[in-house]
Order: sequence, then structure tokens, then C-alpha cells
Amino acid sequence: MSELSQELQRTIRDIPDFPKPGIIFKDITPVLKSPELFAKVIEGFCERYRDKGIAAIVAIEARGFIFGGALAERMGVSFIPVRKKGKLPYKTVSATYDLEYGTDTVEVHSDALDPGDRVVVLDDLVATGGTAEATARLCEELGAEIVELAFVIELAFLNPRVKLERYSVFSMVIFD
Amino acid sequence: MSELSQELQRTIRDIPDFPKPGIIFKDITPVLKSPELFAKVIEGFCERYRDKGIAAIVAIEARGFIFGGALAERMGVSFIPVRKKGKLPYKTVSATYDLEYGTDTVEVHSDALDPGDRVVVLDDLVATGGTAEATARLCEELGAEIVELAFVIELAFLNPRVKLERYSVFSMVIFD
Repeated sequence: MSELSQELQRTIRDIPDFPKPGIIFKDITPVLKSPELFAKVIEGFCERYRDKGIAAIVAIEARGFIFGGALAERMGVSFIPVRKKGKLPYKTVSATYDLEYGTDTVEVHSDALDPGDRVVVLDDLVATGGTAEATARLCEELGAEIVELAFVIELAFLNPRVKLERYSVFSMVIFD
Repeated sequence: MSELSQELQRTIRDIPDFPKPGIIFKDITPVLKSPELFAKVIEGFCERYRDKGIAAIVAIEARGFIFGGALAERMGVSFIPVRKKGKLPYKTVSATYDLEYGTDTVEVHSDALDPGDRVVVLDDLVATGGTAEATARLCEELGAEIVELAFVIELAFLNPRVKLERYSVFSMVIFD
């Protein structure tokens, strides 16, 4: 495990019973409060995707926006927001995915990406992989090429890589 | 009006009747899609707040996270998220503000800021100023000092500065 991974593991805060009983929530706000650690996360992603011909960082609402904004700006590439249904104002394409109970829908603007654009899909955390997989489908529907799905935190015990098997997946810290 | 302000005004897209009939929504996604313009916005804020002893950028969910993440990372200061009620996992302080019909509540973690911290409150857009004013109150409740409330877009015809009169306000582009 890398030094950065260990530092993240020490800094991320466990919140028991959030958002509901039995769930241990991984609170990333102590990482964001530390300028040094936040910078290391962004630099880590930046080094990984520099010189890969990336056109855009596609970031997932809401915490993905924090990392995605910083990464896109640092890399000098487009920032593309993916949001829950009804939040984006212009013409959209949408993708639906299964939740434990029911479904949810994510959207992206229909003019957000051009065919052939090489993109990284970014979120703070991947759990079951449903949102990330739906986001990847959205990008593909616009003709973009998924270089990788990137996360700060991966909850490996929820097996997200099963749902994401078609894609390259990178996570900075993995909780087993 | 500055060159950057003019470029923003040309790039921001008007979406009529969003989110409801009669409203013209200012769509900022074309700014985020342009790496050059996004960088100019972040550099603009960065120049303004550099050497002002800023401890943190306090950013408002969700679009404020995009600019706030990039700005905090670039400035090397803490990123502090302010979210709608029930979204932050740790102990919070909250502030309620009036909407056209009803009220809404924003929250920040109770350990997000220390007394005396000099902060900039950042959002993509200020309309009536309700959310920004409530966010400023949250920061003050934690003992922080508001250096300025900063926005990319100000809808001056909604008179946000009336509600924000106790604070210094800066907006990159103002729509009259």
C-alpha cells in the first residue's frame, strides 16, 4: 500500500450508523480540510492521467465535484458535471441504475462531450458501482472513450469491480 | 467591465423556463467545459485572495464545490463543504433561511473551522442571497471571520446585496 493510501486511511473518518443504522460512512471532509493531503490526492490523479490525451474529467455530483473541479483545473481539461435527474438545465441524455430498493437516474448535457473524447470518470467513493457504471454509459452514448473510472475511496467489500468489469478502475485507498 | 467579465457573459448560456416557467437560468457548464476560461476564473479568485491570510474556502453545494475545490487546491488552503440538511455525516451546526415559499437549511461540520479563521464563502451564483447569508452565519457561529462572499455570477436584479449588506461581496460577472 502506498504512503498516500496509508495517509488517506488514517485521515478518513468512520461515522457509524450514517446515513442509516448499520452503515459505517467514510467521511472524507478531514482530507479536504488538510491542504497538504488534498493536494497530494489531486497530484496523484494528475500524474496518473497526464500525457494520456485526456479531454475531460467527468465528475459525479456532489462530492465528486470537489475533486473533479480541482483535477480538471490542474490538468487544463474540460470539467463535465454528471447530476441527478432534473438538475441540469440544457438538453440531456440520461441513464438509470438499480438501487437496493428502486432505481435512480443520472444525466449529462447532450453537448458535454464529442465523439472520440478520452475521459476519466471521477467520484470520491465507489460502493456498489451503480452510479459510476451509469455515468460511464452516458459518456459512451455521447461517443466518448472511457480511459478509466477513478475514485479516492473504494469499498471493496461491496464488490464494485463486478459491475465495472468492462472498465479500467483505479482507487487511491481500498477498504476490504 | 473587465475582459474576463465580458468573456463570462458571452459564454454563460441562458436557458428559458428552467427550473420553472418564467425563470431564465444561467447555465455555467460552457464555462466549465472551457479549460482556458475555467482557469481564468480560478486565477481571478486566487489573485484576489492571495496574501490575505485566508485559512479556508467555504463552498456551497453543489456547483460551488466545483469552483471551491479548484480554488482551495490552487491556494493551498482548507476546503470546507456546506450542504443541505442531513447530507453531512458528522456533528453539524445549521442555519435556516427563507425561500419564496417555506424555508431551507444548510449545515457545516462543527469542527470545520476554528475561531479566528479567515474564510471566503464561495458559490457559483448569488440570486436573493439567502443561502450565502445563512452560510456566512454558520461560519460566524464557529468563530470564523468572513473576508468576503465570492460568486462567479450575481443576479443584481434580485438585489442580493440587501440581504448581504453586513459583508463584503465580490462577483465576477453581474447581470442587471
